[in-house]
Amino acid sequence: MDFISIAKSAKEAALKAADLTCDIKNSALLKIADAIENSAEKIFAANKDDLEEAEKLVASGEITKSTFNRLKLDQNKMRDMVQGIRDIAKLEDPINKKLLVRELDKDLTLYKISCPIGVLGIIFEARPDVIAQISSLAIKSSNAVILKGGKESKHTNQTILGIINSALDEIKGFPKNLLQQVFTRDDVAEMLKCDKYINLIIPRGGNKLVKFIKENTKISVLGHADGICHIFVDESADLEMAQKIIVDAKTQYPSACNSVETLLIHENFPKKDELLASLQLEEIQLINNPESWAHEYGDKILAFKTVKNIDEAIEHINTYGSGHTDSIITKNIENAEKFMNKVDSAGVYFNVSTRFADGYRYGFGAEVGISTNKTHARGPVGLEGLTIYKYKLVGNGQIVKDYADGVKKFHHKEIV
Amino acid sequence: MDFISIAKSAKEAALKAADLTCDIKNSALLKIADAIENSAEKIFAANKDDLEEAEKLVASGEITKSTFNRLKLDQNKMRDMVQGIRDIAKLEDPINKKLLVRELDKDLTLYKISCPIGVLGIIFEARPDVIAQISSLAIKSSNAVILKGGKESKHTNQTILGIINSALDEIKGFPKNLLQQVFTRDDVAEMLKCDKYINLIIPRGGNKLVKFIKENTKISVLGHADGICHIFVDESADLEMAQKIIVDAKTQYPSACNSVETLLIHENFPKKDELLASLQLEEIQLINNPESWAHEYGDKILAFKTVKNIDEAIEHINTYGSGHTDSIITKNIENAEKFMNKVDSAGVYFNVSTRFADGYRYGFGAEVGISTNKTHARGPVGLEGLTIYKYKLVGNGQIVKDYADGVKKFHHKEIV
Repeated sequence: MDFISIAKSAKEAALKAADLTCDIKNSALLKIADAIENSAEKIFAANKDDLEEAEKLVASGEITKSTFNRLKLDQNKMRDMVQGIRDIAKLEDPINKKLLVRELDKDLTLYKISCPIGVLGIIFEARPDVIAQISSLAIKSSNAVILKGGKESKHTNQTILGIINSALDEIKGFPKNLLQQVFTRDDVAEMLKCDKYINLIIPRGGNKLVKFIKENTKISVLGHADGICHIFVDESADLEMAQKIIVDAKTQYPSACNSVETLLIHENFPKKDELLASLQLEEIQLINNPESWAHEYGDKILAFKTVKNIDEAIEHINTYGSGHTDSIITKNIENAEKFMNKVDSAGVYFNVSTRFADGYRYGFGAEVGISTNKTHARGPVGLEGLTIYKYKLVGNGQIVKDYADGVKKFHHKEIV
Repeated sequence: MDFISIAKSAKEAALKAADLTCDIKNSALLKIADAIENSAEKIFAANKDDLEEAEKLVASGEITKSTFNRLKLDQNKMRDMVQGIRDIAKLEDPINKKLLVRELDKDLTLYKISCPIGVLGIIFEARPDVIAQISSLAIKSSNAVILKGGKESKHTNQTILGIINSALDEIKGFPKNLLQQVFTRDDVAEMLKCDKYINLIIPRGGNKLVKFIKENTKISVLGHADGICHIFVDESADLEMAQKIIVDAKTQYPSACNSVETLLIHENFPKKDELLASLQLEEIQLINNPESWAHEYGDKILAFKTVKNIDEAIEHINTYGSGHTDSIITKNIENAEKFMNKVDSAGVYFNVSTRFADGYRYGFGAEVGISTNKTHARGPVGLEGLTIYKYKLVGNGQIVKDYADGVKKFHHKEIV
């Protein structure tokens, strides 16, 4: 099937899915979790095929060892994947929520109701567990998806989605073609052009992938390319707190997008040398040059810079940062408020590690991704980011002319 | 100044505007309203210059008479413009609203706070009153704007924005360059490419303009190209109600985007001929051919089609519609619910005229535009559509390692 036919059938499926009840969606999710659990051997076998091919690619240097590791499914990842699906079943339905109910006039009521976006295009790299997670999020939010995984995980992806779709076939009334998969680079090119049927693109992978996608489509893209997070140690910061937070933000998971990349230190902070020495003791490599200010190392490397005052810190962050997550360490509450108001990032933190920027830690139950966009959804995105809303207006024959002529008047009374 | 410098200074202004207090913004708005009121003669003089040039263009057929009329300011339009600014001053501040407050753990509190988007690019046609309205909306929402008006209204636009900016110069602490104007086609081309500084583009004009912009930028565009709205007269519809609603939706303002373009009639509706005859009596021209189904006439022309059932009506709307506003007329509540759930449009109406799709009628106080997007903002968009949010996280030294190691646990307690 060519891409346009796939996309068209996805749109048809999305229209049908829009009024699935939460019960049907949840029973579908539980059925999928059981099916994956019961087909673990089949999935491991497919994963083995992928790993055999990937081993050659590691040997020839075409993929890295860390890509290989992300590709590899084990019992733990399998258990987490199944549990993740069951957790999504437990979440509140993000669809059909009354966001506003307003009586415009007697017997003329406006409802703002959350609804699915439509068709999502998901482009992801190695990790085959993404396919189960995204499929579950799509089902829960009544969206259709077209998935394009990395070619290294082709067998695993195909097997997992096959098991998911077989499970869905048994659910009465569940629309066909809600979850589909494509495999080639040409498909990606078609997807990025297909604004007629695809409403939102979500890339899940490294910054090269995300940048490429953002630069090659007019469709909305939800995600972030860089994660250049800052910590500003203010004049009045507590040394011990600063040490603890910076070490956590840099070393707890150095390749995470919410790890700190640049440390800014107020020139009057009295314990600067002590702080830097303690970071080096934690095997953090410190560098101090302008080339490092807009670079995401994803490693135990930390750029640092001394700044004159909080204003220079804020300006540095707004100039070189990626709008992801930035933290101030201070005892001065006014400075903390200034920092949080003036730094133009999705997350602005006061005396905490940047690593908290995460949908689960925020209590969203599931994470679609982290966005540095300035429209639609920003920061860690939960299921809500896969929804939009429609306005339902219920009347009994009202016409605009009566209001334009002054025969009737709106009273705009909030109900919800 | 070249466009990039303008855009860069707009971004700087936006960063400064982000923490303007509501009091400063409102006093700026009231000052602007007074300044425009007091400079009416100057504005009329500039408008006269534009009108003299436009008259020649009407004579040579380069612009239409209706463009000329939209260009022309009179006492009424001037009064409405000034009143519109004062009305925006009365609205609630859309910035700094607490959308969520959640205690993640003891002394670790997450705040989701509304904030401005940043820099808006506004491209609009003839109507010079747009410049005062958009400037006011930008001020109230703490966004910077770069305005590009139609060349026909150049003198009027320049004069009005000059008066606005002089008024702002007198407000202590108000950032420079928040409201700027560009004039050439090259500027538009630069604007559409400038995703580094411009966060949202809002076209205000005909569908050609909107389509051109949507096809030529990767920046989010808020708006709608077509307004192909439908009314479906169900089997059980009340004849009198159907007549009244269709006449309103077609004739009250035929060129509005929320006017009905296509009438779908259930084949078992018993009064079909009577209904069509009565519409013709209202000088509505009825046409029945497939070419008309995806065409916006913007005139007293109405396409009509007989459908077998509600499913065919819904499918027709989802195929040929523009996702703007569609209405069902019926006595059957189940059908009404089905229609409202299955029609994938920003507005789905039950027994009311499509003309109600409007920010003022919805009670938003001001309207930025009407969007048929599936992300960010949909339907009539009020000030809220010019905002996004950031997450503030306030702690006292918390690190992620403690939660990863199980030393601490999140409790995720809602405060707001």
